[in-house]
Amino acid sequence: MRTFVLWARKAKTTANFSLDDLPGSGRMDLVCRCISNALCTSDHLRKDTRIYVILEGPPTPPITLLFDGGLLQQLDFDERSIAQHIQNALRGKTMLGVTVQKKSFERLIQELATTSQLIYLHEKGEDLRLAPFHENTTFLFGDFLGLPAKTELFLERLHAKQISLGPKSLFASHCVTLVHNELDRRYSFK
Amino acid sequence: MRTFVLWARKAKTTANFSLDDLPGSGRMDLVCRCISNALCTSDHLRKDTRIYVILEGPPTPPITLLFDGGLLQQLDFDERSIAQHIQNALRGKTMLGVTVQKKSFERLIQELATTSQLIYLHEKGEDLRLAPFHENTTFLFGDFLGLPAKTELFLERLHAKQISLGPKSLFASHCVTLVHNELDRRYSFK
Repeated sequence: MRTFVLWARKAKTTANFSLDDLPGSGRMDLVCRCISNALCTSDHLRKDTRIYVILEGPPTPPITLLFDGGLLQQLDFDERSIAQHIQNALRGKTMLGVTVQKKSFERLIQELATTSQLIYLHEKGEDLRLAPFHENTTFLFGDFLGLPAKTELFLERLHAKQISLGPKSLFASHCVTLVHNELDRRYSFK
Repeated sequence: MRTFVLWARKAKTTANFSLDDLPGSGRMDLVCRCISNALCTSDHLRKDTRIYVILEGPPTPPITLLFDGGLLQQLDFDERSIAQHIQNALRGKTMLGVTVQKKSFERLIQELATTSQLIYLHEKGEDLRLAPFHENTTFLFGDFLGLPAKTELFLERLHAKQISLGPKSLFASHCVTLVHNELDRRYSFK
């Protein structure tokens, strides 16, 4: 199981956001791109992958969404369609494979740490291509705001490992694609 | 100069498409994601990169768009904002860094072949991580329909090189991210 966790620190915690202005909804567009890149290839859904998104924006943070590729029957992969799924979920109209919980980033991470290795991105971390890790790993990403220092300390206490992806600062959505490619190369057969 | 070329074989060649239904506009969402991934990192525009998109859908194909990172002053990176730029360009309201030409895929490729190495993705190609290529390279991508056989023959005659990115079939937008990462690792310093 590949697990991604995106901490979206400004993303709205209400269905009352505009599908015509996802950037203005606390960068909900970035959330949608991460979900799309985590779960969709050009010919199938990634059944071995799930992505949690902790929405931390107003008015009632935190809310944790889970999109589970093992349960989803289908997923349109454009931003607006995924935002519509998020909106439906926040209104209580979830579909199989999508759940909503009132759970904080810290609590979620503590739970995931009991069953999988934690990895988060850091420019001073070990190179993704060289770092040893199992396919059953949880990869943590901050949004455009990154992770605060106290969260990095929290992750250190959980023995989370730091990895780097390359010399450029990338969007979380790009990072998801790069991590998948590395895992595909190590563990997948077409 | 990094050059990407996306051949969008169904994308509409009119500004008369709905921003609320980019998938229904010949997968214009995929076009927008490719442009975003080609030109945007989390903290800057890629000034060394340009992306051509050949729109080949109805009603008046082909139309070739160019988004040139060296000239663009800014670019919002969500799908809807980029689609709005495409719509404006197709209405003749271009901005600095965006041009529209009545040019076919074949003619564009022939022109680019005179100044840069051509590379296109093929599952039987050499691994991206091992293949030798210069930063001044043109990378060609098909959309969800791929490239037709006669186009592959055309590319062979131009000595285009085939590379593969990994064991999974990916979206063109994912491929752009993976190619950039490889080039960043070889040629960039933060």
